[in-house]
Amino acid sequence: VLSDNNARLAAARGLTNPRARRETGRFLVEGAPAVAQALRQPGVVQQVFATAGARYRHADLLAGAPEVAEISDRAAAGLSETVHPQGLVAVCRAVDVPLEPVLERRPRLLAVLVGANDPGNAGTILRTADAAGADAVLFAGDSVDVYNGKLVRASAGSLFHLDLVTGLDPAAAIQACRAAGLRTLATTGAGARQLDELIDAGELAVPTAWIFGNEARGLPADLLAAADQTVRVPIYGKAESLNLAAAAAVCLYGSARAQRVGQ
Amino acid sequence: VLSDNNARLAAARGLTNPRARRETGRFLVEGAPAVAQALRQPGVVQQVFATAGARYRHADLLAGAPEVAEISDRAAAGLSETVHPQGLVAVCRAVDVPLEPVLERRPRLLAVLVGANDPGNAGTILRTADAAGADAVLFAGDSVDVYNGKLVRASAGSLFHLDLVTGLDPAAAIQACRAAGLRTLATTGAGARQLDELIDAGELAVPTAWIFGNEARGLPADLLAAADQTVRVPIYGKAESLNLAAAAAVCLYGSARAQRVGQ
Repeated sequence: VLSDNNARLAAARGLTNPRARRETGRFLVEGAPAVAQALRQPGVVQQVFATAGARYRHADLLAGAPEVAEISDRAAAGLSETVHPQGLVAVCRAVDVPLEPVLERRPRLLAVLVGANDPGNAGTILRTADAAGADAVLFAGDSVDVYNGKLVRASAGSLFHLDLVTGLDPAAAIQACRAAGLRTLATTGAGARQLDELIDAGELAVPTAWIFGNEARGLPADLLAAADQTVRVPIYGKAESLNLAAAAAVCLYGSARAQRVGQ
Repeated sequence: VLSDNNARLAAARGLTNPRARRETGRFLVEGAPAVAQALRQPGVVQQVFATAGARYRHADLLAGAPEVAEISDRAAAGLSETVHPQGLVAVCRAVDVPLEPVLERRPRLLAVLVGANDPGNAGTILRTADAAGADAVLFAGDSVDVYNGKLVRASAGSLFHLDLVTGLDPAAAIQACRAAGLRTLATTGAGARQLDELIDAGELAVPTAWIFGNEARGLPADLLAAADQTVRVPIYGKAESLNLAAAAAVCLYGSARAQRVGQ
């Protein structure tokens, strides 16, 4: 069992801080399902910390891990950002990639998050984009750190399933998507087109980049103007708006269906 | 300014506890947008507590409130379940209604939550169901208390916009929906039909009750068997599943679109 003061453990504990994540290019993944997903990616997991209980419960999973160190329950709590620490944490290498090679692969479906600052929503959108068969998710502007513990958890492993691009300038990202032949659709409650119209007109069958704004403020006017089209999700009841992740689910699945029907 | 020991204030503070909510039939709504929505419903708001700052900032809103008492910042923190108390809290009467009159109005779109225990997801589904034009949301089985502070917040006022039915036996709720002429669709990753098939076949145009299970465990076998149809949302990428609220958004908007196209 490692001492609670062990240097590697202390370094890992530091990764609950976004600045340490940025400086080291490492982040933490907690819990058996997410750690299993991380272990499936070659070269991503650098080190695993597990309590005696977690080692016993997840012996099969840990058989494939590069380096497993046993830690105390107290140390596990220090590595955890959850109320109920699961005793199993992996230190992973950052998985984000540059935009250029992503666009060179001629993606058909992208999600671009501009200024998304709710980690739960952002992680859920990653998971939904993955489920909808999107090729990549782009984080632009003042968005939450993609390696935030809550975001990683909400993504349920999808962080490792699609191309992740971070730190982009929003206007440059939209321009790059357009130049790569993607139709750019900016979502806003005041969108010029309603989602169902685009579906009816067959306009979602083409390669598409969906652009989603901040939970409270939405997208700024210059980005709405930069996109090929502004789109609103219809509101049939009395709600003033949709939750960002719910709106993204409706848009991304609209595209997924149209692209498959259109093939 | 009320004393922090004032009896009404203490009773309101007690409503952060689910048992006190059940016993009194009252619950708390926090923050200007949600309190404004509550005030629009006749007879719902019983009492408003506001700090001096909140009274000043929201003078227009509070002009229409039945009874406003000024409280200290400390008392406001005691009434709040959020990290950043907003200084404005309304004590509201429970708004749930019995199932029978809801079904007598011949609803066209319902969501039934069975054993949903994540308040954020449940509140988001309420908001999404409202946006999709659903008539009611039914809470069945061991579901989270609908007056939980986090659920109320995530619903963004939609709690007040549609019929809310709570405390139902799941099998009885499904049976009652069928008897009222609703097609009952139970969602599960192993569903016999895929959502897109139902859309293509025009089967979502009829009055429909969508049944959603617990975030981790899904729906039990007896309820899957009791529904007219089991349905899976397609997964095109590598995600193992969708977040419950994301799946609900795709299903409810699928129905909303089909019911409008079918008219």
